[in-house]
Amino acid sequence: FTAMSEKLMENVKKTKKIGEDDPRRIVHSIKVGLALTLVSLFYYFRPLYDGFGQAGMWAILTVVVVFEFTIGGTLSKSINRGVATLLAGALGVGAEYLAGLCGDKGEPIVLGLLVFLLAATSTFTRFIPHVKKKYDYGVLIFILTFSLVAVSGYRVNLILQLAHQRLATILLGGATCIIISIFVCPVWAGQDLHNLVSGNIEKLATFLEGFGGDDDKDKSYLEGYKNVLNSKATEESLANFAWWEPAHGGFRYNHPWKHYLKIGGLSRECASHIETLAGYSVNSKHTQAKEASSSELHLKIQPSCKKLSTESGEALRELATALKNKTFPSAAAETHIKNSKSAAEELKRVLENSSLLPTKLDLQEIMPLLVTSSVLIDVVACVERIAVSVNE
Amino acid sequence: FTAMSEKLMENVKKTKKIGEDDPRRIVHSIKVGLALTLVSLFYYFRPLYDGFGQAGMWAILTVVVVFEFTIGGTLSKSINRGVATLLAGALGVGAEYLAGLCGDKGEPIVLGLLVFLLAATSTFTRFIPHVKKKYDYGVLIFILTFSLVAVSGYRVNLILQLAHQRLATILLGGATCIIISIFVCPVWAGQDLHNLVSGNIEKLATFLEGFGGDDDKDKSYLEGYKNVLNSKATEESLANFAWWEPAHGGFRYNHPWKHYLKIGGLSRECASHIETLAGYSVNSKHTQAKEASSSELHLKIQPSCKKLSTESGEALRELATALKNKTFPSAAAETHIKNSKSAAEELKRVLENSSLLPTKLDLQEIMPLLVTSSVLIDVVACVERIAVSVNE
Repeated sequence: FTAMSEKLMENVKKTKKIGEDDPRRIVHSIKVGLALTLVSLFYYFRPLYDGFGQAGMWAILTVVVVFEFTIGGTLSKSINRGVATLLAGALGVGAEYLAGLCGDKGEPIVLGLLVFLLAATSTFTRFIPHVKKKYDYGVLIFILTFSLVAVSGYRVNLILQLAHQRLATILLGGATCIIISIFVCPVWAGQDLHNLVSGNIEKLATFLEGFGGDDDKDKSYLEGYKNVLNSKATEESLANFAWWEPAHGGFRYNHPWKHYLKIGGLSRECASHIETLAGYSVNSKHTQAKEASSSELHLKIQPSCKKLSTESGEALRELATALKNKTFPSAAAETHIKNSKSAAEELKRVLENSSLLPTKLDLQEIMPLLVTSSVLIDVVACVERIAVSVNE
Repeated sequence: FTAMSEKLMENVKKTKKIGEDDPRRIVHSIKVGLALTLVSLFYYFRPLYDGFGQAGMWAILTVVVVFEFTIGGTLSKSINRGVATLLAGALGVGAEYLAGLCGDKGEPIVLGLLVFLLAATSTFTRFIPHVKKKYDYGVLIFILTFSLVAVSGYRVNLILQLAHQRLATILLGGATCIIISIFVCPVWAGQDLHNLVSGNIEKLATFLEGFGGDDDKDKSYLEGYKNVLNSKATEESLANFAWWEPAHGGFRYNHPWKHYLKIGGLSRECASHIETLAGYSVNSKHTQAKEASSSELHLKIQPSCKKLSTESGEALRELATALKNKTFPSAAAETHIKNSKSAAEELKRVLENSSLLPTKLDLQEIMPLLVTSSVLIDVVACVERIAVSVNE
């Protein structure tokens, strides 16, 4: 029994943490509850209930299915749902009319064929990447509405009346969702994407600054970059939702969201270089302490590496700040990039002239340092490409 | 006009390619069309139509929403939908009864409160990762059904009759989907996951074998591994769906799908090492040609590197075959791993003794080779861990 209550406590803690990590989640839950209660009561009170008829339940269905965490998500689903219902409804009426011409025996055959053809081709379009990304939900609703209308067996004028009711309720549900999601503590996908991308660059900067720094004890910088590696899916879905959003807080409609994906991709590339660095970080510093004076080369490479790392870290931080404030990167960023490039050149020169050194080298010993240098040189190239992208 | 028709042709070609890449997509579309037509006609013919009433449309809705590409996906959605409808229906009747006790004025208030509380808490549970992964759709249906039943305004005995009808139609729709997806060209998520994971290991093997091979012109091996890096999301969703599937073709129910995720993760780690190798591949071979005899060290390292790469590639191929046939890895795999490990030792020894060489070293020149060796040593460690995982 204690084990059970312990497990329960643990789950409660975990659940609490989910809310604390992002309080907007709690707000979102309350918003959904609010929207649903409003629509439900609207539907419950008889005068309205009679006006909307059975169709009233479509308002509830719309709210439950359409309300998403971000405004872009809600808009995308509402618009998909509305347009698909209209299109499919019109086609369904057409199908019904066509089948009616074929007489009592032909009708089910024609209807069955039409439903089959439409459902199969529409389902296939859901495999097309572009359709899947933006209109997946719309195609689903299209198939659903077409089948329902075509098979309803009502005569055309009754269908038109039903369609009118149903569209009105879907509009009611969709509008409730959109209004609540925009006016009660709005969560813009675009803003989230913006913060995520600039935050990721900051994490990389923190790593590089820590890696180049002198404090051997503080290893906290080793953790942050890991999130960057796994942010691809989140970035893509946010960019997708942001595409649907109107102008808001400094972003205009049709803001170049694709650029964020590009910057995000470069950040991940940089992060995977950094992962290699992190693997050598512990070893390298260890070696450094042990063999501090054993190799002349060591003494020559080490400072360049540190400078390289610190400068590119600072350049990234400037870029992140510029991105966050939507300004062009300051001159400071360019200076840091220039400095890191000259450090890289310096490093290359040291390596080239290594054969002129008086002592011979123990490769096994200096290997971690060599790999570190080589990866850092890649990082500089990566940082430069991020800078170019941010400038755009 | 020509531009338009060209663009159209291009789109047609792209769409055709989607079908050719995986013909099961076409089959899936036909299966959905078939299921929908069957259910629609069932609903269309009056005798059945009268029996099921308006509820008949729930059968169509269920088919459209529940039919997924893999059997696991279809099962997961059907079961979620069925269980959630039952639970929410029972709770909704309870809410209706409770609200009825509060008199005419209290009823809407109590109902509104209950709907709000349930919707808000259920929406919040959708943020819990475990719930989101397995039961997201169920929670959605739970909120929907509860609201619909609670607000319907019918008396309890009428609700019970409606619920009976609705459950019957949902069962009909779900059963149609499940039967068609299992008996017409089944697509098992488990089998797909199995093929994906072993295929990915094979791609890594192809790269390593090509990298260690002598043929400098055939660079085709450089491409395959890239897919491995991006397979995480697919693997996770397949493993999730596979969890729902009954025993099939050599997999028992509750097959250890999590192991596949582990092996997949190790494969990706290995692939990211390989990405570094691929970056150096062109340079390294170029250097090799130019400086073929310039450095003694080169001549010593090169063969070990080649052997290391080839042997670990062959080990991976053996492991992939073992995984594919669900047997324990053959002795050959172990031999290859042993060989690759001894090659790694050899390589380390060469590096350690480098200070005894008569000539001095140009670090800049041998750097690519050094990085390659270092990464290859990491690859060997990674291959060994994959071997351990496959053994499990």
